[in-house]
Amino acid sequence: MELISGGVCAAKGFKANGIHCGVRKNKTKKDLSLIYSEVPAAAAAVYTTNLVKGAPITVNRQHLTDGRAQAVICNSGNANTCNADGVEKANAMCKLLADAMGIPEADVIVASTGVIGLKFDIEPIAAGIAPLVAGLDYDKSRDAAEGIMTTDTEIKEVAVEFTAGGKTCRIGGIAKGSGMIHPNMATMLVFITSDCAISPALLQKALSTDIQSTFNMLSVDGDTSTNDMVTVLANGMAGNDLITEENEDFGAFMKALNTVTVALCRKIAGDGEGATKLLECKVSGAKTPEVAKAAAKSVICSSLTKAAMFGADANWGRVLCALGYAGVPLDVDKIDVAFASAAGTIDVCKNGAGVDFSEEKAKSILLEKEIEILVDLNDGDCASTAWGCDLTYEYVKINGDYRT
Amino acid sequence: MELISGGVCAAKGFKANGIHCGVRKNKTKKDLSLIYSEVPAAAAAVYTTNLVKGAPITVNRQHLTDGRAQAVICNSGNANTCNADGVEKANAMCKLLADAMGIPEADVIVASTGVIGLKFDIEPIAAGIAPLVAGLDYDKSRDAAEGIMTTDTEIKEVAVEFTAGGKTCRIGGIAKGSGMIHPNMATMLVFITSDCAISPALLQKALSTDIQSTFNMLSVDGDTSTNDMVTVLANGMAGNDLITEENEDFGAFMKALNTVTVALCRKIAGDGEGATKLLECKVSGAKTPEVAKAAAKSVICSSLTKAAMFGADANWGRVLCALGYAGVPLDVDKIDVAFASAAGTIDVCKNGAGVDFSEEKAKSILLEKEIEILVDLNDGDCASTAWGCDLTYEYVKINGDYRT
Repeated sequence: MELISGGVCAAKGFKANGIHCGVRKNKTKKDLSLIYSEVPAAAAAVYTTNLVKGAPITVNRQHLTDGRAQAVICNSGNANTCNADGVEKANAMCKLLADAMGIPEADVIVASTGVIGLKFDIEPIAAGIAPLVAGLDYDKSRDAAEGIMTTDTEIKEVAVEFTAGGKTCRIGGIAKGSGMIHPNMATMLVFITSDCAISPALLQKALSTDIQSTFNMLSVDGDTSTNDMVTVLANGMAGNDLITEENEDFGAFMKALNTVTVALCRKIAGDGEGATKLLECKVSGAKTPEVAKAAAKSVICSSLTKAAMFGADANWGRVLCALGYAGVPLDVDKIDVAFASAAGTIDVCKNGAGVDFSEEKAKSILLEKEIEILVDLNDGDCASTAWGCDLTYEYVKINGDYRT
Repeated sequence: MELISGGVCAAKGFKANGIHCGVRKNKTKKDLSLIYSEVPAAAAAVYTTNLVKGAPITVNRQHLTDGRAQAVICNSGNANTCNADGVEKANAMCKLLADAMGIPEADVIVASTGVIGLKFDIEPIAAGIAPLVAGLDYDKSRDAAEGIMTTDTEIKEVAVEFTAGGKTCRIGGIAKGSGMIHPNMATMLVFITSDCAISPALLQKALSTDIQSTFNMLSVDGDTSTNDMVTVLANGMAGNDLITEENEDFGAFMKALNTVTVALCRKIAGDGEGATKLLECKVSGAKTPEVAKAAAKSVICSSLTKAAMFGADANWGRVLCALGYAGVPLDVDKIDVAFASAAGTIDVCKNGAGVDFSEEKAKSILLEKEIEILVDLNDGDCASTAWGCDLTYEYVKINGDYRT
């Protein structure tokens, strides 16, 4: 499926904007974003499983009970989490926007990202609402994507086109990484829009199914955030017949959604805090999908494997080690491992034991920016992919003094 | 309980030695160690739960079926893991030593630590056996402790004295850290000796119980090693009545064992790869011991908390975040958090929300070498402690090119 431009504004009827309002001290950094659908849209979301939850999540659970929303507002610089008056402030954000736009408060989805436990001032946001709304436009997905960034170094947006019921539909999304990334049922902040007509129930089903093999297979540092959220709005403006059952159109929607979410996963992992490389662990030959997933994710999460990749060191023993503690049954003596990148592929382990290989060739493969760790369990037909990044000095630096 | 000197030679009848034999290229590094009891000893061990297991572990499981051993031989520089002929080589190591000492092969415990998947040459070990045995002495615990080090920067040995059945008994141990430390049922290599008379069954029970609150509560990098092993030999030479039931003497032995294992945990964590600080997370007020353990371990394992401690940043939100994804039920709104060290104690979070505190005082507390993260769940009477270390540039450096 081909990617197109436009991000969250690729689909019909969606405007966006992102500005600096003052939550962040640095005036060159945008810190407030808005995504708006011209008509009310079917809406679905998945949230972090962390017991410590950002206040916006509590508010969204209430607002999305009817499966409908029209706008997403998000600030960066403060997570509005572990604040005694957090829910009150999150509700105030929704009310400010709803009043400015003339839509019901319950049709606003709210999100916050940044430092946990920092007192949350509503004043800069209150002052920012007017310019935020006034500047809404069809070509400002990038501004919105910028406004939700924290330690991200790259804007993350993607969109695709597909056909449902003979109509051209689009789906696009923006995301922020890049630390505290180890989603469990959802991930950091991902906002997806579509003009496809689909019922709220099927929209939720599509999202809940998709994240199992996308965002839940992503890890930067093993820390599940308190504010993780993926939300999707589908406003039906493509004019296709409303999708209300798991038919061919639903399949087309699922495929398009997956193209968007996989692309965003790769962007988040590749821009993980301090990362110099995107790691993709592809496990095949597993007895069950659960074994494939657990194995792939264990490799991606191993600090030692991540550090070896940073050093372009073909230390496959660490891959085997991570497979061994994945917590699922594996026949160690059947496992094959190879490393691959744009520079080629090299076998390093067969049947659980090392094979002779050229260290020079391995080095040239691992010096690339995108590395595949290929694991064949030779034990069945199931496969899974997980995304992560290398562990670098920079990760430590970023997180040694992120707050102060 | 007071610590005494002597390490694994503190108990009566134990000799040790450590030499360079050539497994490691660097001639200034010892790479072969031996611990020997003058009489056969009751022996117990616990091993890694990683499905990828070092060949020595397979051999030890056979040798320890009778609960008896007389010697421990260990090389560093090569883990003898993921080698097709690994078990053969591990058996050869035992036979070489058994022949040289005139003891049964089944009374030898064997261990290896170092790179996984590297071909294992028996020749340097075969050549080293004679000088290793010839140099055995009562004052060489340090040499043995040196011979098992890999990236460790400090020798780890400890011993204590206690009374059982009116007799003075001793128990001492040596350990190696310092990366791939996230034990699960056992940890890296820890060798413990005692002259206490105790049956093999009760010795195993003491060890298996103790590790639940000691080595299993320790993590340097979340990677469970393939070669983890804790073993204890008790040769009865203290002359106390044989401990065969869970009486007062067993309690005294357990307490002494725990003093040794906690001290070794602290040494391993404090000397974690690249570490500049020892972190001790003490969770109290938990509803159950399981909640206390899971909560303490989750904090110690959080990369973000570890990096914040490296930067002496009182970013308590990361502690809350790690508690929230610990996978056990917690009432977030009751949680209190404080940081403590030799420089004082500071409250940073009450009832799940931030409190005003002096950043300057917090900094001075966190700049110390040993940091306590104090978590009160205010939800019960159970407590637990976990040990870890900060995440530093040096960890990444060590592991970016450990192998090549």
